[in-house]
Amino acid sequence: MADGDIVLGANQYGKAECRLVRVTRDTPVHEIEDLNVTSQLRGEFTLAHTAGDNSHVVATDTQKNTVYAFAKERGVGSPEEFLLALGTHFVESFEQVTGGRWAAESYAWRRITVDGRPHDHAFVRSGESVRTAVVQLVDGQAHVVSGITGCTLLKSTGSEFHGFPRDRYTTLAETDDRVLATSVTAWWRYTRTDLDFNAVHEAVTALLLSTFASVHSLALQQTLFEIGRAVLTAFPDIAEMRMSCPNKHHLLVDLAPFGLENRNEVFHAADRPYGLIEATVQREGAPQVPEAWATVPGFC
Amino acid sequence: MADGDIVLGANQYGKAECRLVRVTRDTPVHEIEDLNVTSQLRGEFTLAHTAGDNSHVVATDTQKNTVYAFAKERGVGSPEEFLLALGTHFVESFEQVTGGRWAAESYAWRRITVDGRPHDHAFVRSGESVRTAVVQLVDGQAHVVSGITGCTLLKSTGSEFHGFPRDRYTTLAETDDRVLATSVTAWWRYTRTDLDFNAVHEAVTALLLSTFASVHSLALQQTLFEIGRAVLTAFPDIAEMRMSCPNKHHLLVDLAPFGLENRNEVFHAADRPYGLIEATVQREGAPQVPEAWATVPGFC
Amino acid sequence: MADGDIVLGANQYGKAECRLVRVTRDTPVHEIEDLNVTSQLRGEFTLAHTAGDNSHVVATDTQKNTVYAFAKERGVGSPEEFLLALGTHFVESFEQVTGGRWAAESYAWRRITVDGRPHDHAFVRSGESVRTAVVQLVDGQAHVVSGITGCTLLKSTGSEFHGFPRDRYTTLAETDDRVLATSVTAWWRYTRTDLDFNAVHEAVTALLLSTFASVHSLALQQTLFEIGRAVLTAFPDIAEMRMSCPNKHHLLVDLAPFGLENRNEVFHAADRPYGLIEATVQREGAPQVPEAWATVPGFC
Amino acid sequence: MADGDIVLGANQYGKAECRLVRVTRDTPVHEIEDLNVTSQLRGEFTLAHTAGDNSHVVATDTQKNTVYAFAKERGVGSPEEFLLALGTHFVESFEQVTGGRWAAESYAWRRITVDGRPHDHAFVRSGESVRTAVVQLVDGQAHVVSGITGCTLLKSTGSEFHGFPRDRYTTLAETDDRVLATSVTAWWRYTRTDLDFNAVHEAVTALLLSTFASVHSLALQQTLFEIGRAVLTAFPDIAEMRMSCPNKHHLLVDLAPFGLENRNEVFHAADRPYGLIEATVQREGAPQVPEAWATVPGFC
Repeated sequence: MADGDIVLGANQYGKAECRLVRVTRDTPVHEIEDLNVTSQLRGEFTLAHTAGDNSHVVATDTQKNTVYAFAKERGVGSPEEFLLALGTHFVESFEQVTGGRWAAESYAWRRITVDGRPHDHAFVRSGESVRTAVVQLVDGQAHVVSGITGCTLLKSTGSEFHGFPRDRYTTLAETDDRVLATSVTAWWRYTRTDLDFNAVHEAVTALLLSTFASVHSLALQQTLFEIGRAVLTAFPDIAEMRMSCPNKHHLLVDLAPFGLENRNEVFHAADRPYGLIEATVQREGAPQVPEAWATVPGFC
Repeated sequence: MADGDIVLGANQYGKAECRLVRVTRDTPVHEIEDLNVTSQLRGEFTLAHTAGDNSHVVATDTQKNTVYAFAKERGVGSPEEFLLALGTHFVESFEQVTGGRWAAESYAWRRITVDGRPHDHAFVRSGESVRTAVVQLVDGQAHVVSGITGCTLLKSTGSEFHGFPRDRYTTLAETDDRVLATSVTAWWRYTRTDLDFNAVHEAVTALLLSTFASVHSLALQQTLFEIGRAVLTAFPDIAEMRMSCPNKHHLLVDLAPFGLENRNEVFHAADRPYGLIEATVQREGAPQVPEAWATVPGFC
Repeated sequence: MADGDIVLGANQYGKAECRLVRVTRDTPVHEIEDLNVTSQLRGEFTLAHTAGDNSHVVATDTQKNTVYAFAKERGVGSPEEFLLALGTHFVESFEQVTGGRWAAESYAWRRITVDGRPHDHAFVRSGESVRTAVVQLVDGQAHVVSGITGCTLLKSTGSEFHGFPRDRYTTLAETDDRVLATSVTAWWRYTRTDLDFNAVHEAVTALLLSTFASVHSLALQQTLFEIGRAVLTAFPDIAEMRMSCPNKHHLLVDLAPFGLENRNEVFHAADRPYGLIEATVQREGAPQVPEAWATVPGFC
Repeated sequence: MADGDIVLGANQYGKAECRLVRVTRDTPVHEIEDLNVTSQLRGEFTLAHTAGDNSHVVATDTQKNTVYAFAKERGVGSPEEFLLALGTHFVESFEQVTGGRWAAESYAWRRITVDGRPHDHAFVRSGESVRTAVVQLVDGQAHVVSGITGCTLLKSTGSEFHGFPRDRYTTLAETDDRVLATSVTAWWRYTRTDLDFNAVHEAVTALLLSTFASVHSLALQQTLFEIGRAVLTAFPDIAEMRMSCPNKHHLLVDLAPFGLENRNEVFHAADRPYGLIEATVQREGAPQVPEAWATVPGFC
């Protein structure tokens, strides 16, 4: 086999995890935006790979500088708008850049309460979940996928699991009352780029939580589907939703050897292994857009 | 030097990180307590070390079982009470156990809101900080040290740093307006074992946050001391407070090369290195109790 | 839009991170295999999602049991063979299972040396990299992708970076001598399922390291491509190779303020941000097999 | 209680986790030293805490600069020597600095093999363990404590556990053949500061491993004591040794429900909870030096 047969395939490169904190201080009541931004370019970079010729390579350091400069020049506003602006800039500024991937994690902060009132410029980081976003520009099209990760939920009742098939390797007992716990990673794809992303994100997250709480669950699969159904029903600008959710097993501790009855009161929260339930909820007949989902972590 | 000269010194052993979730379901409105419990015994265990003779060794598996059984038999109530009960049990039940160390992390959960009301049995884990406790029994005396860890705080103004000495290796510029951010690990030692530990813990944490917010800071050292002073002033049953706080540097990004002025608006949140400020605040003349602090992590 | 329009899309579920240690003790010289196994099934599971009907749902607990039972019944041999056996079992045993994803991490152990000889049954975990494998069964076809992750490499010279374009946001200086460091995540796809996977994996890893060392690098992109070219040239049964490699920046410390010259001797190893270079190397004209790569982490 | 009663207690501050990579390139065969250095000062810093007066506060940034400058001016040599030099510098240069704590982690690198020979300037990070050191200067005295952490060891036989007491909460079965696994954190205190620290560290680590392998273990406690005894016997300049070792439980999987017999072949490697065994081995009658151990992590 000749050397020449071996060629470069899909590739992307950039600067990952630029930790950006943007303070808006136009008034004494400061606002903070706290992001972890990644920029990756796609385009015509073959010679860098095959010949070490960097004449097309927008330095990853330049990408980082652009992130910080844009935070000053245009502000953040929402992660999605910020990533769209970054991506548009790179595609429009450099001929060799045909598209790319721009991603961000965002961290929430709550104002500290002093004498019953929220403080002007002091904050505590609140960790119920991390907000995520991936924007991809592909063939002139912008795809926006937003989500959350690390959102740990638990129901102490209202969850059953039974009726599953039994084979030679099955030992699990059926149950009509168990603890159901998970740490949600969810992603949803928007069909528009001109939304009030902050407002929608907050509403989707609240609906996700309330649906988790309300559904009487016969399987974690069912809970996930109902969450997706609720979100797609309420938000016509969301085309599909993907969830990757560990079943964080809470094992009922056997207290019988100690003469005690454990009426679903004492659990061991296990680490590994864990169930892993992953599902997509979508609109029937809607076009599939795999390029919007490429490199979106979570379904693995 | 003869072999016989080499002897066993201080030692302790037990079961670490028993992940206990306790559901109280006496009414439809469930309560959950979520702990990570460690039990370690001290006493006469020389022969296990020098001869492999386990006749004195209360198995670590037995210690784990006791944690779960106690969660059923007496409930948790507060981490501090639970650890005191565990410790007392082991010391009273086994002659060879003269004391030990019992520790717990506790994780907070918030009820999910459905239709504007808190749900009866569905929760989201809230992560502003982890509650900690270490109880030690030494020579018949119980020592209770409680704390928080992982509490990330930030002030976007109201912090200065100047007036420090300059030597050959000093390049840092002085500043009268910087971002001050830290992730607090704090510990405080109680002088009593009969407190409403949950109420006090909540109040100390709130005071810690509001003091961080209120102090105009000339040094992170000053902020820590003022937090300790506020807590010891407000809580006469707390003898001393220790804090270990990274100075999480938020570096002002130099935007001048891009023709932009950065008026304390755009920061790079750095990972490493970080400042590390550690201080004890105590009552003058009060007796030192080093055995209460042995094995309390954070001051290192 | 009617509720009925919302449907289930792609989904998979199973048990993740079964921590399996298999000891082969047929002779006094023991062998250990240490894996972290994930099993996920795909097929006809719609009713579990839409109606909570679990009659098709092979319990994740059953999947876990099968992992441990297979480790006894057939042994491990190589991660790839083990995953292929698991996958085949589930597809052949359950009509509703049409395919799935089976993945493993494997951890290397070195025999401890005693009196100059390797010990029969005592080992130390060696951490130069973690071996990975993902097997997917799709439409009756088996796809095997193997890799490594967490392999940290460094060259103290023999790396340059210059000739890149400069725009308004570019400040990076050109260099003809820098430290090049990365932590390799690499994946390669086999075209056969009957290989001596252990031998090939060891040889690919060794070639990856030696190529990294030998290439005089004008860009990390070039180093990655040369690694892929070397591997595809040497191993005709490998169709393509993907790499995701952070550029772990080692920043030359400015010692001039202290009257010292830093001739590429003293570096600060930075955490974030980092460059992120991702590339595929493939054979020209070979068919693309995206289903083999779906859910393979690393290219994101 | 008056405000004035509340005073500053023990305190220290500095810069943590300076990631230093030092390349020695006097010849074409480069050497690399890779450290994570922390510097913390103790002394007269009361006014910084109580009044925000920084006139005594050697900036943590200055401490960091000194780490990097010293790496150029004097090189590293060994972590212990480097930390001693740093500490001596601060104590001698600043009147208000009476002592402090200097600590380092060190990471090992192996030369990459090319054509059967070690490469001149290309390395792979080898992760069998992390080398640690803590130097403290207290009252004009230097204390050197060195160690390792993250060294994961396993014996697939040659370990028993029986003869332990049984109470109401005991369910553990006795065993005369189990897997014994741990992740060693060990620290040893030198009585001299002029040793060949690199050579001694390598020899202690090798002896620790070989003793773990050789001891037929009736309890992890026994294994730890024998390691300490071997080290103190072989190295007269080591006064005492402390170990903190999780018992990483490898649970025999019950395969009986599947009609299989598990003859110590298939194990589940559990995460939590884990046993935690901590012991000191020392020379009888030798003076205790608690100040050398203050802030040394691991015994907690």
